[in-house]
Amino acid sequence: MGRIVQKFGGSSVEDAESIKRVARRIARTRGAGNDVIIVISAMGDTTDELMDLALKVSPRPKSRELDMLLTTGERQSAALLAMALSDLGVEAVSYTGSQAGVLTTPTHGNARIIDITPGRVEKALDEGMVAIVAGFQGVSQTTKDVTTLGRGASDTTAVALAASLGADYCEIYSDVDGVYTADPRIVPSARHIEQIGYDDMMELAASGAKILHLRCVEYARRENVPVHVRSSFSDKPGTWLRNQDEIDKDPTMEEAIISGIAHDRGEAKITVVGVPDKVGEAARIFKTVADQDLNIDMIVQNISRLSDTKTDISFTLPSGDGAKAIAALDAVKAEIGFDELLYDDQIGKVSVVGVGMRSHPGVSATFFESLATAGVNIQMISTSEIRISVIVGLHDVEAAVRSAHTAFGLDADETATVYAGTGR
Amino acid sequence: MGRIVQKFGGSSVEDAESIKRVARRIARTRGAGNDVIIVISAMGDTTDELMDLALKVSPRPKSRELDMLLTTGERQSAALLAMALSDLGVEAVSYTGSQAGVLTTPTHGNARIIDITPGRVEKALDEGMVAIVAGFQGVSQTTKDVTTLGRGASDTTAVALAASLGADYCEIYSDVDGVYTADPRIVPSARHIEQIGYDDMMELAASGAKILHLRCVEYARRENVPVHVRSSFSDKPGTWLRNQDEIDKDPTMEEAIISGIAHDRGEAKITVVGVPDKVGEAARIFKTVADQDLNIDMIVQNISRLSDTKTDISFTLPSGDGAKAIAALDAVKAEIGFDELLYDDQIGKVSVVGVGMRSHPGVSATFFESLATAGVNIQMISTSEIRISVIVGLHDVEAAVRSAHTAFGLDADETATVYAGTGR
Repeated sequence: MGRIVQKFGGSSVEDAESIKRVARRIARTRGAGNDVIIVISAMGDTTDELMDLALKVSPRPKSRELDMLLTTGERQSAALLAMALSDLGVEAVSYTGSQAGVLTTPTHGNARIIDITPGRVEKALDEGMVAIVAGFQGVSQTTKDVTTLGRGASDTTAVALAASLGADYCEIYSDVDGVYTADPRIVPSARHIEQIGYDDMMELAASGAKILHLRCVEYARRENVPVHVRSSFSDKPGTWLRNQDEIDKDPTMEEAIISGIAHDRGEAKITVVGVPDKVGEAARIFKTVADQDLNIDMIVQNISRLSDTKTDISFTLPSGDGAKAIAALDAVKAEIGFDELLYDDQIGKVSVVGVGMRSHPGVSATFFESLATAGVNIQMISTSEIRISVIVGLHDVEAAVRSAHTAFGLDADETATVYAGTGR
Repeated sequence: MGRIVQKFGGSSVEDAESIKRVARRIARTRGAGNDVIIVISAMGDTTDELMDLALKVSPRPKSRELDMLLTTGERQSAALLAMALSDLGVEAVSYTGSQAGVLTTPTHGNARIIDITPGRVEKALDEGMVAIVAGFQGVSQTTKDVTTLGRGASDTTAVALAASLGADYCEIYSDVDGVYTADPRIVPSARHIEQIGYDDMMELAASGAKILHLRCVEYARRENVPVHVRSSFSDKPGTWLRNQDEIDKDPTMEEAIISGIAHDRGEAKITVVGVPDKVGEAARIFKTVADQDLNIDMIVQNISRLSDTKTDISFTLPSGDGAKAIAALDAVKAEIGFDELLYDDQIGKVSVVGVGMRSHPGVSATFFESLATAGVNIQMISTSEIRISVIVGLHDVEAAVRSAHTAFGLDADETATVYAGTGR
């Protein structure tokens, strides 16, 4: 008998019928003798609808009150699921994030989990009940106000609960059956990934892959919680997210150098043209942007031109933050002394991810060759130990992803032997 | 500067526009320098919609979970109202019943307020904020589960909060502008009541008048909280509910013997025919019904027939409980030895209410004469110190109410002098 946390997303609990279907699935898991803890999102588009309602009342809703409003969605689905389970003869009880002991920072709308003290949940499990926790929410450890954890954070709640309750693993249910080597909508030949390590998943998530939120993967890695990402609409196995060492020890797993190709169409590029090439100028540019509370992704400083003492600096950031950054830099133009600002949101980021590249030289060569083959121009390059990212034109993203996917032998009709010997 | 509790019902906060309108009204009250506490119901038909959703998921929803679900309605409107007030420059904060310290019995769906410990509300008021409390809910003092207080209980919450916070008075807003001498839909000439005592209001509420819930009036009487019942759609004064002695001292108030005529179409009459006329039989009949947790209203035991040793006993109860009572009595038919059971739900109760009847003889005569004038047959009679009730045929209710209303000089085109001299 194990202890399992299962998280169901909004699309899995769209309406009353879906809730009953999810209840039947949970009943089976419980019937097998497991302790079961459920984390549940709001039904369908409830959160968006509540947000719309808030905006009808107030153009800039107060964040504390917005959290009080938005958290009702998860609370409703949790209560409904408990009712459905009771009808199936499975004792169940629902809890808000606060009642379940999810303690957070006080930042409304984007709180982080500090700790989980799941006393009431443990007690319910001891009494043989299924414990259902409303996702996306907690309570501020200091102010005692209800908080929401930022989008995609029900996954994080589930993993955090799994960690604090000593669960054997955590299952994340959605309408997709796991992680693929690339977005199947762009690469029809993308493969379903059976097992992937935390580090690779983190890089994929940071590079644009939408399956699991970065924060969730970080938490899973830190607490060493195995996560099974799967579909609530089928019984096919999903993708197991676990410790890389365990995957490496698994003799059935092929040695894959590259886990997958991620893409991100949500960034914009800002180029500060003609920055005086002296000490401290770059720092002032980035401090100006940081003071706006904006996160910068990739940075490239052009090699200085021999002919003068100026250089260009380019960086990328979420396009939603573009206007704010431009405004902030405009304001210090005279002070810093650069010539002009260029803004381009018709860009995309394509990333190749895999812990295997640490030990296999030639990966960047293979990547850049595949881009050249597809006629794709590289605007910026950025690398980490296990990831290579390039910025290309937005219109080139799909071709780039497909070309790289093929070049790394990830296409589904290829065999495993292609992996070995591919160098970095 | 005073301290005022205002309660707004569902029809007053139908949608985003209504919420903003209510916010403007509250802003005016706060702008006058008052401490303001708001109790708010769910928007429009939200509670009914949530109930429908629950029934789609489960035919008999677990009561604990139903409370977790239903309470989200008030929580949403409270948060939205706080947002709207903030936009008007009025600092406001919302609280669930639990956060506001509304401690209750553990009975889900029909909890009673045991105590209110409004520490967080007091603190918000001290900080100059408007405190908004989600109505209809509290938290069980023993189980710590969220509870709902039974229909119409947001009014009770408002009065209870007014009492515990030492408010000057409590305003109950709805879509009607107060209490009338009879239901204006039946008696177009019904008068608007300016002031009414707790006792009269309690009898009117117990007799079918739908303006304020009985529990709310009981609470107001016990704690001596003045209550102003008015419309959120106009600025006309409503009806003031206060201590009868204060009304009597008010020289501007006419001496009204009768406050009003109430009617109730929700009861059914059960007659146990041929009950052996010996000691203990009546007790056994009512114990049988009481054991089903059913409340009985009026009871009449017929005068024994000289010719034999049997009698008939009739009683009324909410028609929804009729089937249960009949089944329970059927089961003990042989044991008690009565002849048969008769069931009639085509009845209505009409009640004349007024503390004045204590000191004015002739009220029952006037009442019964008015019924005779209208050709209405009286089936059962029941009286208290300040109320006379009759059971009539359902089809006779409207005529009975109108006739009595006229007989007691309550019609709006009559002058005050008609009251004096009307006897009991």
